[in-house]
Amino acid sequence: MPAAFGFPEAILFGASLLVFVMQAGFCALEAGVVRSKNAIHVAVKNLLDLFVSVGIFWGFGLGIAYGATCGGLFGEPVLMPNDWDGPGGLSFVFYQLAFCGAAATIVSGAVTERIQTRAYLVLTMVLAAVIYPVAAHWAWAGDASGPAGWLGRIGFIDYSGSTIIHGLGAWCALAVLLQLGPRRGRYEAGGVESTTGGNLIFSALGVLVLWFGWFGFNAGNAFLTPELIPKIVINTLLAPVAGGGVVVLWQTLSGRVFRVREIMTATVGSLVAVTASCHLLEPRAACVIGIVGAALAIIAAYALERMRIDDPLDAVAAHGVAGVWGTLGLCLLVPADALTMTRWEQLGVQSLGVLSVFAFSFCTMSAATAAWRAWRPLRVPAHAEIQGLNIAEHGARSEFWDLVTRARGAATCR
Amino acid sequence: MPAAFGFPEAILFGASLLVFVMQAGFCALEAGVVRSKNAIHVAVKNLLDLFVSVGIFWGFGLGIAYGATCGGLFGEPVLMPNDWDGPGGLSFVFYQLAFCGAAATIVSGAVTERIQTRAYLVLTMVLAAVIYPVAAHWAWAGDASGPAGWLGRIGFIDYSGSTIIHGLGAWCALAVLLQLGPRRGRYEAGGVESTTGGNLIFSALGVLVLWFGWFGFNAGNAFLTPELIPKIVINTLLAPVAGGGVVVLWQTLSGRVFRVREIMTATVGSLVAVTASCHLLEPRAACVIGIVGAALAIIAAYALERMRIDDPLDAVAAHGVAGVWGTLGLCLLVPADALTMTRWEQLGVQSLGVLSVFAFSFCTMSAATAAWRAWRPLRVPAHAEIQGLNIAEHGARSEFWDLVTRARGAATCR
Amino acid sequence: MPAAFGFPEAILFGASLLVFVMQAGFCALEAGVVRSKNAIHVAVKNLLDLFVSVGIFWGFGLGIAYGATCGGLFGEPVLMPNDWDGPGGLSFVFYQLAFCGAAATIVSGAVTERIQTRAYLVLTMVLAAVIYPVAAHWAWAGDASGPAGWLGRIGFIDYSGSTIIHGLGAWCALAVLLQLGPRRGRYEAGGVESTTGGNLIFSALGVLVLWFGWFGFNAGNAFLTPELIPKIVINTLLAPVAGGGVVVLWQTLSGRVFRVREIMTATVGSLVAVTASCHLLEPRAACVIGIVGAALAIIAAYALERMRIDDPLDAVAAHGVAGVWGTLGLCLLVPADALTMTRWEQLGVQSLGVLSVFAFSFCTMSAATAAWRAWRPLRVPAHAEIQGLNIAEHGARSEFWDLVTRARGAATCR
Repeated sequence: MPAAFGFPEAILFGASLLVFVMQAGFCALEAGVVRSKNAIHVAVKNLLDLFVSVGIFWGFGLGIAYGATCGGLFGEPVLMPNDWDGPGGLSFVFYQLAFCGAAATIVSGAVTERIQTRAYLVLTMVLAAVIYPVAAHWAWAGDASGPAGWLGRIGFIDYSGSTIIHGLGAWCALAVLLQLGPRRGRYEAGGVESTTGGNLIFSALGVLVLWFGWFGFNAGNAFLTPELIPKIVINTLLAPVAGGGVVVLWQTLSGRVFRVREIMTATVGSLVAVTASCHLLEPRAACVIGIVGAALAIIAAYALERMRIDDPLDAVAAHGVAGVWGTLGLCLLVPADALTMTRWEQLGVQSLGVLSVFAFSFCTMSAATAAWRAWRPLRVPAHAEIQGLNIAEHGARSEFWDLVTRARGAATCR
Repeated sequence: MPAAFGFPEAILFGASLLVFVMQAGFCALEAGVVRSKNAIHVAVKNLLDLFVSVGIFWGFGLGIAYGATCGGLFGEPVLMPNDWDGPGGLSFVFYQLAFCGAAATIVSGAVTERIQTRAYLVLTMVLAAVIYPVAAHWAWAGDASGPAGWLGRIGFIDYSGSTIIHGLGAWCALAVLLQLGPRRGRYEAGGVESTTGGNLIFSALGVLVLWFGWFGFNAGNAFLTPELIPKIVINTLLAPVAGGGVVVLWQTLSGRVFRVREIMTATVGSLVAVTASCHLLEPRAACVIGIVGAALAIIAAYALERMRIDDPLDAVAAHGVAGVWGTLGLCLLVPADALTMTRWEQLGVQSLGVLSVFAFSFCTMSAATAAWRAWRPLRVPAHAEIQGLNIAEHGARSEFWDLVTRARGAATCR
Repeated sequence: MPAAFGFPEAILFGASLLVFVMQAGFCALEAGVVRSKNAIHVAVKNLLDLFVSVGIFWGFGLGIAYGATCGGLFGEPVLMPNDWDGPGGLSFVFYQLAFCGAAATIVSGAVTERIQTRAYLVLTMVLAAVIYPVAAHWAWAGDASGPAGWLGRIGFIDYSGSTIIHGLGAWCALAVLLQLGPRRGRYEAGGVESTTGGNLIFSALGVLVLWFGWFGFNAGNAFLTPELIPKIVINTLLAPVAGGGVVVLWQTLSGRVFRVREIMTATVGSLVAVTASCHLLEPRAACVIGIVGAALAIIAAYALERMRIDDPLDAVAAHGVAGVWGTLGLCLLVPADALTMTRWEQLGVQSLGVLSVFAFSFCTMSAATAAWRAWRPLRVPAHAEIQGLNIAEHGARSEFWDLVTRARGAATCR
């Protein structure tokens, strides 16, 4: 009964571990960017959404994603599988559980500092039970005899999920954001500034850890074609090097300060962009994908700011916009012989994939959010947002906050 | 002379690295929970106990654990081995050195914020030279021809050490705790609160890193039976997902805040509980083991608090109590055909193992602690505890502390 | 066209990932040691130098290092290679890119808290384009038919770069340091103290992560001779255990406080020292290499302090001086049959290697620094150094700094 464990499974296992460690990367990145009164909340929320997303996906979503297909639209549910019959066996399940955790955690950063923990966890359940599994089925379900989902069958290319993971996470985040509204005071004079983080050291470390994990995120799918791995890892290294490098060059030449948020958004955007086609691109083309992905992510982040959509982690810009570019841009940049159709036909297929995943994930998450709001509040009360979620949601004080509170109290007494 | 390095050794190497990185996880977890005046001390102590435990175990303990057996009780000492003759060779030694480091570091969290560094390091030596090696010999010594230790011979099951590592570490911690006493002011009004950590972001990251390392901790023993690895890793993922998930559900339904310490203790408790039988359990049964382990760890933590046993990291609850559950509960939850005896007989064997390891480790560490106290103080002086161990033991000031001290000085001057 | 991916490439891939994660280790180590007003700057700088060093080395330096040799002095440039023809193929390129990133980041710590980011990035380019590639060519270029560089041909032994990476990084750091000068107020009463770090928890974690990565740093070169790996990893574990352990013993016996900086410098120094000969040493000899390396690193750190060379991270002491010891000391400590010449002849070869790498790297970097200074300032202006580089170079405020600034403002107003 136990599955075999040879070289392919060892690759899956190593890759899954790297995807797992991305949870620590996201956790550090987010906890460093938010104000410290919310930082403990954010860090703990990353543990909670891991419990929920992995638990729900194993318990229910896995069958929807990879069970026997129902017309290419979704798979048959398999409840809490003890074993798994398919390439990679339980090792593949481990990889997929880690993948789903990554998709779920993208939402976390965008809605941070004002969402109710309970609401967030319920929305994560919807993502892990329905939204991610269905989209994964469309693009990735199938076996040695060929793809089973409708997107896979028409030739949609999204190797490790520029659209299926990152785009989907971003559109879910956007759906919640639009109903949630910006952080209190975000767009008023003297309000929350976008550039002050509680502790950006955590964020810089988080970006490095994310990048570290991304090598497994992209390489794991090659467990049956390991000869692709060297190219995949080089591309996963060079795309953000090029994307981040060009941003730093632009900051230098334009005499700007080296704004931390731009650098982080550029790095993540480059990584997201290269994810769809890391197995096909030549390294130089991966640099181009990375540079454009970084630029678009930064432009989109500023555009969202102008539109007063408050996304503290730039999740929509870096995962969504750069994900669209990665999924479409590959039509232009992969070698012609890597495609089974013309570049224009491929662009049509890719666009269809991007649009259908957007429509499905955005609409489903919007409906779920609206349903929750009809029942319970989505936001924490105003006083909790002012006090900070560390205390309001976790009863967790920090010494720094204690000091500030006492100092304020002392000042008032005088 | 150099050992071969093939697939089994590569598994051992990867697993050992993951166990090594658990040191960083423990370090972050502890440093985040303690008050910041002790945080640097705690972080550095984790480096020091790594030097001491690995050095002593390599220099002396390894032979006691895995040398030729003396009646099933302990092995023949081998001083500072340059090479190792046995399955896995030097790669196995690397794995075992990392294991011993993990056992030693469990004690660290419980006794933190008031123990003398010198005393702690000497007690760590006792653990690494005698306590862990003897217990490891009992359960794990042996070769292809069968187990050599007396516990192994009677059929004791403890795959990666719910009892031999985690239980043992916890009982050693308890032995020291009882003689050390609680932190100053811990059980007085206005004293140390259990829920205030200096920086719980570190702790949340630490839990994620610990979990990440635990995959190697549990999987490394399968280096000669890699077909077990998929099941082991799935169980190591799902047990804390279930355990943590149920705790979060309980917190939600009961309207409590999401208390960080409960979540962390539950996660670690689930991981400890699944460690003994991760190679035998079906995934659903692993969830049950995890849920009960998490619940018992939280209950035990509150019970110890009531008994005024001050364990800042819940080491005794999460590693000890959950470890007992993991070691005994497997009799109930593994498939019947995985046992070589009836469930009741297995329960007898498991209980004997738990009790004998408890008696041996608790008594030996109590005696060692008493011996040290007869010679030198175990606790830091009161003024050092008030000032914080960063300065008292390391001369290390932090800017935050400087600010507070100066502010206090300024207030006094007026 | 895609390279094969078998066991050797998997080793290279795993090792490269570990080297990559050393970036996170260096980042945390440095960010914790500096004053918090510069900590964000330091963390981000580690991302920037990764972009620059990897980008430049891939774009230009790789051919200089491993292209067809021009008289053993340097290789033929290969611009932005899409593929690589040689043992390990693209996987070897990935490993080398990570290596170059490590060499570059050593400089970062020494010059921190006062260098212009722009100047630093340009100097990093020189390191990645010329200095590291040429030295790597001398010692490591070649193929199955034998070494190609002049140092390799005469029998120079430096397995993973005690001299070629760590020494070289340290000498480049020294060259910049001498023209840069100490931090403002460093050698005045009441100025910057060497022992106050903004947040030494990060530093302790950083040391653990560095050590974790070092296993891959040392083991990756054995991808075609994996039977060496068990010995390499044991030595990489035991050298710092012995070196750090002896320092702690000395601190204990002499009644000193456990000074954090000494412990960290000793750990890194031991790791640097064992790097040159980790594949040849018996474990006991590795302990000796580690102990002497740790001692020399600490002595050198205090000596540099006396000479008023302000190196906040002890990079010159731990990477340079310990690197010299590691490169020379192996003549004494490796088994005689591991050498192809007498110990005295080997010492001559090793000394020649150490001196020539020192001369080349120190002179080239001194010239580059002088050239920059002739054009633009090397240091940030005095007001930026006082204000902190977080704000001056990144516009990044932290809440702690905000609080202090406001408190100061309030005090002035009264």
